[in-house]
Amino acid sequence: MSIRSFKTLVRVVWADTDAAGVVHFSNFFRFFERAEEEFYRSLGFSFTDFRNRGLWFPRVDAFCQYKKPARFNDLLEMELTVEELKEKSMKLGFKVTNKETADFLASGYMVVVAADRQMGRAAKIPAEIVEKLKPFAKQIL
Amino acid sequence: MSIRSFKTLVRVVWADTDAAGVVHFSNFFRFFERAEEEFYRSLGFSFTDFRNRGLWFPRVDAFCQYKKPARFNDLLEMELTVEELKEKSMKLGFKVTNKETADFLASGYMVVVAADRQMGRAAKIPAEIVEKLKPFAKQIL
Amino acid sequence: MSIRSFKTLVRVVWADTDAAGVVHFSNFFRFFERAEEEFYRSLGFSFTDFRNRGLWFPRVDAFCQYKKPARFNDLLEMELTVEELKEKSMKLGFKVTNKETADFLASGYMVVVAADRQMGRAAKIPAEIVEKLKPFAKQIL
Amino acid sequence: MSIRSFKTLVRVVWADTDAAGVVHFSNFFRFFERAEEEFYRSLGFSFTDFRNRGLWFPRVDAFCQYKKPARFNDLLEMELTVEELKEKSMKLGFKVTNKETADFLASGYMVVVAADRQMGRAAKIPAEIVEKLKPFAKQIL
Repeated sequence: MSIRSFKTLVRVVWADTDAAGVVHFSNFFRFFERAEEEFYRSLGFSFTDFRNRGLWFPRVDAFCQYKKPARFNDLLEMELTVEELKEKSMKLGFKVTNKETADFLASGYMVVVAADRQMGRAAKIPAEIVEKLKPFAKQIL
Repeated sequence: MSIRSFKTLVRVVWADTDAAGVVHFSNFFRFFERAEEEFYRSLGFSFTDFRNRGLWFPRVDAFCQYKKPARFNDLLEMELTVEELKEKSMKLGFKVTNKETADFLASGYMVVVAADRQMGRAAKIPAEIVEKLKPFAKQIL
Repeated sequence: MSIRSFKTLVRVVWADTDAAGVVHFSNFFRFFERAEEEFYRSLGFSFTDFRNRGLWFPRVDAFCQYKKPARFNDLLEMELTVEELKEKSMKLGFKVTNKETADFLASGYMVVVAADRQMGRAAKIPAEIVEKLKPFAKQIL
Repeated sequence: MSIRSFKTLVRVVWADTDAAGVVHFSNFFRFFERAEEEFYRSLGFSFTDFRNRGLWFPRVDAFCQYKKPARFNDLLEMELTVEELKEKSMKLGFKVTNKETADFLASGYMVVVAADRQMGRAAKIPAEIVEKLKPFAKQIL
């Protein structure tokens, strides 16, 4: 069974750019998170559901490597993969491509951990969420 | 007795700019709010104190008029005045000047209302806060 | 002939929110601009085209009135109207509605002026752009 | 001779926070860059000087590891070190500490490369800038 990835599009708006005429590097992390949100939505749940269970998903690591700039009006294809799925955390991988030119722009990852909002401790990712994530996971640890 | 104003400085950072090489217009509202926060701090209280009283200060109106652009590295002088002080709300006025060139860049206002966080209803601004605001108020209604 | 409006959708992402659990007020201005960009795209031109003509569209006034908060994951319907169309500027009106609940959240406007990028002076809005804007204009001055 | 580090303070503003009540993770990268800008200013030059030489400093890698959250009103101490100084690039390290509680919040790095704005190619960091950076460099490669 091949591993699935999730794709979504992001249109670069003017407010994403900086005085170099390109998307500010910090906004790639916002695009990563936006792709993550759309991924959860595509699986039928959202950060709001997590909150209702007393869970949230803080980031513990975030990394991006920039190859080419994105500019105003560019249509970006975000590809998300689940690099590692663990009991209490996961590593999400991202690739950013210019949809129109097919230029590869950036890649990166975020490690997110399930956490109990009351206690602040790491918590298990709920079983039915794990089931939905498995088809996307390169490694299940 | 003359009416007082509050002044604070904001340094324009790269992330504030957009592809036109100037500060994105939406960031002037963030500068307004930052000046507001420094104003409260100068008076000895903060949004956090408001939260601890079960209050917050949502904005109901926000306006800015732009005269000249601000650019990366500019040092902005924010001047805050209390245009109107009411029982449950106030109108804060702002002027933005380039500190080094003395160019007048923008002016605007925000109307903020005290609100009960539980009920969501407008609430009275606490008396000791009103006392601290009075010396800055052009109009007390 | 009835006057047309333009509608587009904005999904609230986590990064749009603040510690009050609602969309930060400054982000409504970014949503306004995003709707403006989609409007131009729907008419077949973009800020990039303006730049190629040596023009840009700085904002001179921006206003928003907030009625109800928007929250993470909300789907917002942005309705754009051309309130006034002048030779060198226009006033764009915006209404923000929660698409799922039909709650009216906010309204506002931006006055944008065509400007010569070299000279920095106000310039005429190009004739073919004016033609495309006319069906949306409440007032042509 | 001991290696120097550069320190600067960042006050967390309301607009930096998200609906979890903490600073949005992407904003740590903006704080990194802000510390970098203050560092250059302390050395007597700025991004603007680089631009005037036809240079800019795009980021090629950015990483942050999050240990504890920062909240509204927190005063953050940013410590910057030059981890590696190369002919055409450098790796800047950052540590973020809560100035009042002394809690260590996050650390990370950015690799920035000098680039010719016309050609888009990597360029040498100008000699007098290298001289100013050397006292801060852990490794000169």
